[in-house]
Amino acid sequence: MKAAVVLFSGGLDSTTCLALAKAEGFACHALSFNYSQRHNVELEAAKKIAAKLDIPHKIIQLPVEAFSGSALTDKTVEVPEYQGDGKIPVTYVPARNTIFLSIALGWAEVLSAQDIFIGSSFVDYSGYPDCRPEYFTAFQALANLATKAGVEGNGCTIHTPLIYLSKAETIRLGVRLGVDYSMTVSCYRADSAGAACGKCDSCHLRKKGFQEAALADPTQYQGSSR
Amino acid sequence: MKAAVVLFSGGLDSTTCLALAKAEGFACHALSFNYSQRHNVELEAAKKIAAKLDIPHKIIQLPVEAFSGSALTDKTVEVPEYQGDGKIPVTYVPARNTIFLSIALGWAEVLSAQDIFIGSSFVDYSGYPDCRPEYFTAFQALANLATKAGVEGNGCTIHTPLIYLSKAETIRLGVRLGVDYSMTVSCYRADSAGAACGKCDSCHLRKKGFQEAALADPTQYQGSSR
Repeated sequence: MKAAVVLFSGGLDSTTCLALAKAEGFACHALSFNYSQRHNVELEAAKKIAAKLDIPHKIIQLPVEAFSGSALTDKTVEVPEYQGDGKIPVTYVPARNTIFLSIALGWAEVLSAQDIFIGSSFVDYSGYPDCRPEYFTAFQALANLATKAGVEGNGCTIHTPLIYLSKAETIRLGVRLGVDYSMTVSCYRADSAGAACGKCDSCHLRKKGFQEAALADPTQYQGSSR
Repeated sequence: MKAAVVLFSGGLDSTTCLALAKAEGFACHALSFNYSQRHNVELEAAKKIAAKLDIPHKIIQLPVEAFSGSALTDKTVEVPEYQGDGKIPVTYVPARNTIFLSIALGWAEVLSAQDIFIGSSFVDYSGYPDCRPEYFTAFQALANLATKAGVEGNGCTIHTPLIYLSKAETIRLGVRLGVDYSMTVSCYRADSAGAACGKCDSCHLRKKGFQEAALADPTQYQGSSR
């Protein structure tokens, strides 16, 4: 079995991506980051999902300083409700995917893994610059030059299998793969039990996905009883 | 004054790079990493040099896991004497410059800095893939796509002012800039006082640099008295 590093937040997209990489036969190593994100209850979800899928899972602690100023990391900046104005939202975290992918690249080399998976989408997405196809193409070009493995011919492929899927398509894919979306946490303002606000960017896109997929939304929302 | 993030290990090259960025009029923010490197006495040197230059200095703790398997981070892998065989040495650390530059990119965006300096050289160097000009060109391309600042037109320039300088030329430049090289630590096997082994790759290149520059080598070597 080929080893792969899978970036894994415990949210809807990365859980689908992890299930897909596993279904494709990769020996997955799930990688999460604690960057003092406001919604770090997602890490608890990630732990449970990785355990259920029987996938080794590592949570790496990152320095807060590099991430300050975002609504996701700075409690003085409020997470707004969904705006849909086409602007990069205040939940943008400086260079987040670049830092995550760089560490994944190092860890992949340590593991002799030649594949990295990331579940970003360019369709129903928040407009973050580091979720665009051209961004991942540039990271791939960098990865080919950056490592000993790359120079010696055993480079690393960056897989973005969800990049052109709508949220509804991602959900349908995940359901076919047996993903239990009730275990995933997408909300930026999730409470300590993982219940979602239903109103932030991330909740908006997730809700719309279940509606468009014509599937029951298993998300637990704040104030509602199961 | 324009702000700049300067990657700064406390070694000969990065200290020269820091002095150069300062001389060019940048308001420098020095950035060091503790990645459990064997020679982390270099961080003590870095602190003293930054204090002497009156430059704000941050040391970021990185997770060890991403860096294992290198002679620089794994005490079970020995740092060899200089080989000069053209191969990538065992002191190579997986994806190190990519991880360092990624965090610098995030921190630059937090600081609204549009410039990052890194003191890598492609001339008297150890053959690490992430010190080659094409690697930095690829990182620049990535940086232009990765961040909100990049998308909005205030991107980040990656400066590699020493890339085509020999070690002797770097030393001559540093001397003109007033760098006190006796404060810097380059050795991979430096003792707890920062004294150098004189025999590893890094010592070999540094020694040769002072010889070719026809300047007295102020390095304190192990077993010699000042």
